[in-house]
Parts: sequence; structure tokens; C-alpha cells
Amino acid sequence: MAGLGQTWKLTLAYDGTDYSGWQVQPRRATVQGVLEKSLAKIEGQPVRTVGSGRTDAGVHALGQVASCELQCPIPAQGLQKALNRLLPPAVRVTSADRAPAGFHARHHALAKTYEYRINRASVCPPIQARYVLWHPYPLAEAAMVETAPLLEGTRDFRSFASHSREPPENTCRTVFSSRLERGGDLLVYRVRGSGFLYRMVRNLVGTLLEVGRGNLAPNDMDRIFAARDRQAAGPAVPARGLFLTSVEYADFGA
Amino acid sequence: MAGLGQTWKLTLAYDGTDYSGWQVQPRRATVQGVLEKSLAKIEGQPVRTVGSGRTDAGVHALGQVASCELQCPIPAQGLQKALNRLLPPAVRVTSADRAPAGFHARHHALAKTYEYRINRASVCPPIQARYVLWHPYPLAEAAMVETAPLLEGTRDFRSFASHSREPPENTCRTVFSSRLERGGDLLVYRVRGSGFLYRMVRNLVGTLLEVGRGNLAPNDMDRIFAARDRQAAGPAVPARGLFLTSVEYADFGA
Repeated sequence: MAGLGQTWKLTLAYDGTDYSGWQVQPRRATVQGVLEKSLAKIEGQPVRTVGSGRTDAGVHALGQVASCELQCPIPAQGLQKALNRLLPPAVRVTSADRAPAGFHARHHALAKTYEYRINRASVCPPIQARYVLWHPYPLAEAAMVETAPLLEGTRDFRSFASHSREPPENTCRTVFSSRLERGGDLLVYRVRGSGFLYRMVRNLVGTLLEVGRGNLAPNDMDRIFAARDRQAAGPAVPARGLFLTSVEYADFGA
Repeated sequence: MAGLGQTWKLTLAYDGTDYSGWQVQPRRATVQGVLEKSLAKIEGQPVRTVGSGRTDAGVHALGQVASCELQCPIPAQGLQKALNRLLPPAVRVTSADRAPAGFHARHHALAKTYEYRINRASVCPPIQARYVLWHPYPLAEAAMVETAPLLEGTRDFRSFASHSREPPENTCRTVFSSRLERGGDLLVYRVRGSGFLYRMVRNLVGTLLEVGRGNLAPNDMDRIFAARDRQAAGPAVPARGLFLTSVEYADFGA
């Protein structure tokens, strides 16, 4: 049956607050679960999707990418509209593009960008509460800004991979860009890399916060990388400030 | 007992999505309910509050005002911090100010400002879904912008008062300012008035939308005012786009 249908690249935005993450799990509301349920209604039979990667419970997305194959003939705009009619408002398809046969959202991803938002106001606006980490306490922000680029490069990020899963054999990853920026009340961390280990972004941000608190210094980073030990880095920050903002692929003319 | 304590003016922001409105109701989560519960923990006994007015289920606030009297001596900043520790993140005290004895958040309000947010993008961003009306369909926005100021003035707003409650005998109100403005993907209606009838703002916006759809014209407004009939105006828009942005009082040096 594979190869007879059309391969699709779906780009999704979602509010992860009320979902147990991206990946389908029995008896839990997941983003992939609601997506596959909506696709099955259009296709008239079960549809399997592949995400560019998992996002954890509570993590949001502005540009998650999923691939799937559909037999039903439908124009791209029609598919997007049909999906957005079927999906809950917390999950939106921001674009539906035809992809070459064999396109695989995870295997073919070249880079991903994440953003972590920290609100520094003395009172966190309620309409931001689901989408930021609120941190009104003193932070040496300049030291954090200075530290962020020290996390760039092709390195062994094992110290930043969470223990709750066995890390893969190869924990080497390339971080192309790692920057922290203040805009209004928001301190925003943006990181673009070839791939990320489990909870790696939340562990990187937790480490930057330890620098802000004075518990670590910029020049501790080399020691933390060398340790290859999760205990050497800072604790993970909560999921709610994290957004998967985009996933990059080789251009196929979509 | 009244008169022995300190009168307080509390300014609140809230995400109304998960609340059955402002006003305390048995067996329902309300904003006033969670506020009074938190105040009672600080005071050690029940505390009654008065809001500047009710907000409906699902309506948000950036600057709702409540008054109350507390016996417990506490500095203003201490009260704000203690409340924000006790309240859920969806409800925040943005300021706590000492007020003159007898200050009454409803009786002494001079003006209120509301904002209604309409998202015009082809896809509504999930993180806005709880806070806007999504309306991607064609609208004659210029006609709506032209109509908005025609709702200003001291008028009988009975046509804009919802049926679900008996309107008060006097349905005359003063709207100081009524403006519609496009900013990015958002079409924002701002209205400032002496006071508002039940669902009046949502009915005003619904009427503007009927103008945008071509079902009403700017010069229909005088006829609608004259009709004193709810059926003459447009249907109410959903609560989720509505924010009570501020309540004004005579200055008491707070």
C-alpha cells in the first residue's frame, strides 16, 4: 500500500498544556493522537504519522512537523482546512504541503529550533501563565547572556541529557546557535541544533539559571561538558516555557 | 465591626476561561470565590469583597477592582504577595492599595474600559485561542471602524442589553469612547463608559460584526438605538475575546 498514496508534510502549532506530550499513548490525550484521529476521519481508515521528534507533556509548538501518507485525493488547502475543522483549537495545522514519496519528518530533519520564555515581571500576567516560567527573583542576566553562546558547538551533551531515559550511545550533538535575549519582561532563550537529547533544552536553560543565581559561572561550562554527568549541570526547568519553534529540512520545493 | 479595619482596593488580572465568572456562586469556581478564600486565609475569618461589577463566565480582566475590609494589619506589598502566593496563577493581584474607609468598588466606579479582541488570521495561534474570537472570514472592516464611534454618547442602550436578565428601569448609559482598530492580525474594539448593561459590550461587538458582514450599515445605528429592542441589534459575541481592562475612580491618593 505504501507508495500508492501521497506523502504529506504537516506543520503544526499547539498549546501543550492539556496534552501528555506529542507521542501517542494509550488512554492519554496526546497531540499526535488527536492529529491521527482527525486524519483517520478524512482518510476513512487509520493513519500513522511520524513527528520530527517527541515534545514532552506541557511543551508547546509553533512549528512542529509531522509526515504521513494519505490515499484520499485532497488539495493541500483542503487538507489544512479539514484538519483545522476537526482538531481542537489548541492544535492547529499551520500548513499542509505535498512532500516527495519517502519524506520522513524525523529522519530527514536537518535542524530544530526551540525557544524558552522566562517572565521577569513582579506579577506574571495570567494570560501568559501557561506559556512562561515566571522568575521574578534576582538573576545575573549579563552572566547568563555571556554563558549562552558557550553552549554552542559539536560537543558531547551527555551532562545535559536527563536520567529518566537511558541516553543513546552517541550523546554528541551540534548546537549551531545558543542565545539569550531580554525583550520587555521576557528573557528568551533560543537554541538551534542538529538534534537534541531528552530534556536537553530544559537542562540547558536550568544551567543558565544556575549561572544567573551565582551557583555556576560561565567558565564552569567546559567542566560540565567534560564531566559527562547529569549532576554536573543545572536542574531542568518546567515544560510550560518551552516552544518547538521550527524544524528545518532540505528544500523539496514545498 | 465595620470601620475598625482597613479598607483595601485590590486590582486584579485574570484568565476567565476556567471560571464561572466573577461573582461567587455555590459549587462553582468563580474569581471572587478564589479571592475571598485566599483573603480568609490571611484574615483568619471570612472576608466579603465587592467587585466593580460582574464579569461573565469566560471573560478576562487586566484591571478588575475589588474592595474589602481587613482587620489584620499587613503592609500593602505584603498583602499583594501573600494573595499571589495563595491564588491560582490564572488570578493575580496586580496591586493592593489602602483606600479610605467606605471605599466601594462598585458604587464609586466612575468609568470602565473593556477591550474585545478578534483574530483575523487564516489560522488562529493556539496560544491565543482562549483570548480572542477567531474570525478569518471576510469583513468590511472600514465600515466597522466607521460605525464604532456612532455608539458613543449618552443614550438609551436598551437594544444592547441581553434578554436573559430583566433590564434595569434605567437603560441609559454614557459611552465616552468607542473605537475599533486593526493591529497586526488583531482587530481590537475598545470601549470606555460610565457603566454597561448586561452583555452590552458583547452585543455592541456583535452589532459591529453585522456591519462588517454587510447585514447592517453605519446609518442603521440610530434606528437600533430608537427601537429599544434587543432583536434590533446584532447577536452577542463569545466571552473569550473580552477583557475588562480598567476601572476608574476619583483619586484618593493610592
